[in-house]
Amino acid sequence: MRIVVVGGGAAGIGAQGGAKGAAPDAEVILYTEYEDVGYSPCGIPFVHGREIERFEDLILQDKKFYEDAGFDIRYTTRVESIDTASQEIQVAGEGTVKYDRLVLGTGWNYEDPGLPGSDLAGLHYVKNIRRAMEFDKLLDEAKVAVVVDATPIGVEMATAFAHRGLETHFVDPGGWPLADVADPEIMEPVEESMRGLGIHLHMQTSVERFVGEGSVRGVATSQGEIPADVVVVATHKTPNTALATAAGIKTGSTGGIIVDDGMATSAENVWAAGDCVEIPHSVSKVPINGLSGSHAYAQGKVAGVNAGGGERAYQAVQVPWGMVAGTWTIGGVSFGETLATALGIPHVVGMADGISKARYYPGFSRIRVKLLVDPKTRTLVGGQMVGVEGIKERADFLAMAMRARVPIDDIAWMENVYSPPIGALNEPMALAAQNALGKL
Amino acid sequence: MRIVVVGGGAAGIGAQGGAKGAAPDAEVILYTEYEDVGYSPCGIPFVHGREIERFEDLILQDKKFYEDAGFDIRYTTRVESIDTASQEIQVAGEGTVKYDRLVLGTGWNYEDPGLPGSDLAGLHYVKNIRRAMEFDKLLDEAKVAVVVDATPIGVEMATAFAHRGLETHFVDPGGWPLADVADPEIMEPVEESMRGLGIHLHMQTSVERFVGEGSVRGVATSQGEIPADVVVVATHKTPNTALATAAGIKTGSTGGIIVDDGMATSAENVWAAGDCVEIPHSVSKVPINGLSGSHAYAQGKVAGVNAGGGERAYQAVQVPWGMVAGTWTIGGVSFGETLATALGIPHVVGMADGISKARYYPGFSRIRVKLLVDPKTRTLVGGQMVGVEGIKERADFLAMAMRARVPIDDIAWMENVYSPPIGALNEPMALAAQNALGKL
Repeated sequence: MRIVVVGGGAAGIGAQGGAKGAAPDAEVILYTEYEDVGYSPCGIPFVHGREIERFEDLILQDKKFYEDAGFDIRYTTRVESIDTASQEIQVAGEGTVKYDRLVLGTGWNYEDPGLPGSDLAGLHYVKNIRRAMEFDKLLDEAKVAVVVDATPIGVEMATAFAHRGLETHFVDPGGWPLADVADPEIMEPVEESMRGLGIHLHMQTSVERFVGEGSVRGVATSQGEIPADVVVVATHKTPNTALATAAGIKTGSTGGIIVDDGMATSAENVWAAGDCVEIPHSVSKVPINGLSGSHAYAQGKVAGVNAGGGERAYQAVQVPWGMVAGTWTIGGVSFGETLATALGIPHVVGMADGISKARYYPGFSRIRVKLLVDPKTRTLVGGQMVGVEGIKERADFLAMAMRARVPIDDIAWMENVYSPPIGALNEPMALAAQNALGKL
Repeated sequence: MRIVVVGGGAAGIGAQGGAKGAAPDAEVILYTEYEDVGYSPCGIPFVHGREIERFEDLILQDKKFYEDAGFDIRYTTRVESIDTASQEIQVAGEGTVKYDRLVLGTGWNYEDPGLPGSDLAGLHYVKNIRRAMEFDKLLDEAKVAVVVDATPIGVEMATAFAHRGLETHFVDPGGWPLADVADPEIMEPVEESMRGLGIHLHMQTSVERFVGEGSVRGVATSQGEIPADVVVVATHKTPNTALATAAGIKTGSTGGIIVDDGMATSAENVWAAGDCVEIPHSVSKVPINGLSGSHAYAQGKVAGVNAGGGERAYQAVQVPWGMVAGTWTIGGVSFGETLATALGIPHVVGMADGISKARYYPGFSRIRVKLLVDPKTRTLVGGQMVGVEGIKERADFLAMAMRARVPIDDIAWMENVYSPPIGALNEPMALAAQNALGKL
């Protein structure tokens, strides 16, 4: 049996491992366009920001590791098309390759800004580690950077440039950074801290074109032109489904490939995983797309196991998230108020400001928690937080509470650790839940 | 209606607030033996350790605050006896006081070490803030300190003395610090770090007597004599039920007052809350005693509301806990392996070492998680952790997962935040759960 995996990101690597585990005798071949697999692209902004020393630190496994593990990886190889009827793919330079089972982990692309000047040199899209290494050399010479669009990667890159001492301009049409995922009460301290880091925020500002001849020299916006030595384009992620749609594989409302809970696509013997698919949200059943590397890896594993003849299911997702933004950490689970309102999901809001340690213990930090509660079921619809310590762990808590359908009453009166150097008498999530209870 | 509260700790203050809320027109009187209420005794070790600057920082509310709020607090007043038939108490200096409803929040005492020399000056018991202020002055002159018994307060005090630069000896009959609550795999790095801080650990060592004439000058142990300028006795906490038992109110197997889920005692119109009561553990139903200040406050609130004519229930407890120990933070929920084995609770152990950030991100720290799983129900029996970041938040997570009876499978395959500066690809609790699954 031959199992072919397309894509060398977290989904593809997970799929290859899953397939080999489920079908040890199968031939498993992974095709990737790129020169590398087994590194963490999530770390790239922090190398630019000089918080991580070297790009090489991001490499988790070298090529020899995969060779020794018996993984057949074909680097810098393009899969050009799929024929799901004859179970064949066309590979540039290799010709026709038959498959018994196929797993697609083709990932995502940046949304095309569709603006004049998009082909200028010096416009950079954060994704591939080798391009990042080249771009990093440009940064040594650069004085002024513009980051276009306040998406999560945009926020990380703007923060990184500020850390590196560049004059940084951050341009976005929204009213505040991450406007389509995070609420203003959460982002307000973040914005303030970004300004404190010297970042010039140009909110409610649209990019009209990239200025320059050959190389980019600036960005023309609805509020005037900003000169720039380097420009990072951090538009939204869109699922990369070109191969799949050309082969007639069905995609859904987000543009992602539709999969069942075994990650099987509409085509026989074809599975898909990671940023190229859409997955239902556990509570709202809304299909969502563009999750994290850990989601992609877990989905890839399920797809690979099932392609190898096993039987594994992937659960609907709550999507805990978190990131450093300015000098704060933000995070949450599922929907904020902005998104829940846009999707028409009924909710009551509970909000509270708490602290991370006893208020007399030096170095405590503020934590703001905003919870959304379904007034009918009294369970969580989502939550958002801004703080310094314990944000990732609280987002994981909220995701588990959503999954287990924990009533908001039980969060309001939860037991929590109280010890002056590590936790306050009142857990901030409990305070927010109590606030929500008052409105129910 | 007159509601009398005995005790000015977290339980008593919670009860007074609860009673006033439920019965705004009632006369609510609180009696305390001490000079103060409204401070955090949990912060005392950290002032001795100079991590918190002044004892005054521990005062959360001053006396005027309570006066302004209409609270009638009788300071330095001893309640000598209760007559539950005539609904009267005897108060030293005030005589007979009638009550309609009574709430006991009489707290805890240190177990009497029962050793020769227990009456020497310089033996200190950490509890009251004014005694702590006096003791702190002794510390300015002291060079050598001995801490007797490796209980949580013992660990905090030994760590505090080391921070303050005293030669610190820590004596305990157990094989490792906190031996009756924490497992050796968790305490091993803690012990190492305590030695690194210069603390002399004398484990498997019993104290035989306190040496000195008038003032303590040393501690005689099974392993020889340790000279000392100051000695902290940190024996176990025992429920202070002298008043209750003399009045015929029933106590249980832990020695704590037996209460129902409304915190009512066996005597009519008498409630009790905090360290003087025992509460069933949620899963094992074992009665337990000696929880945290946040438990005492929450229980006091319930007792006060019910004494005031309201109707509120207090849930069985999971008891998340956490504390700084040496240079580490430890924590967990419910039972460790040592205690579960002693109690005969069936369990399978899952253990894993994880990290707090991406492993290429500077400053990540190790987190060891040990989970106990009931092999029949596949839910948590308890857990313990040692790490630096996120221990309190993870203990809260585990407590919620226990309360919601989350299957260990759902913890093993939980969704978690992955972002290099705040969380690793693999959540350490999930890794430990996966390890447990392998044994089920």
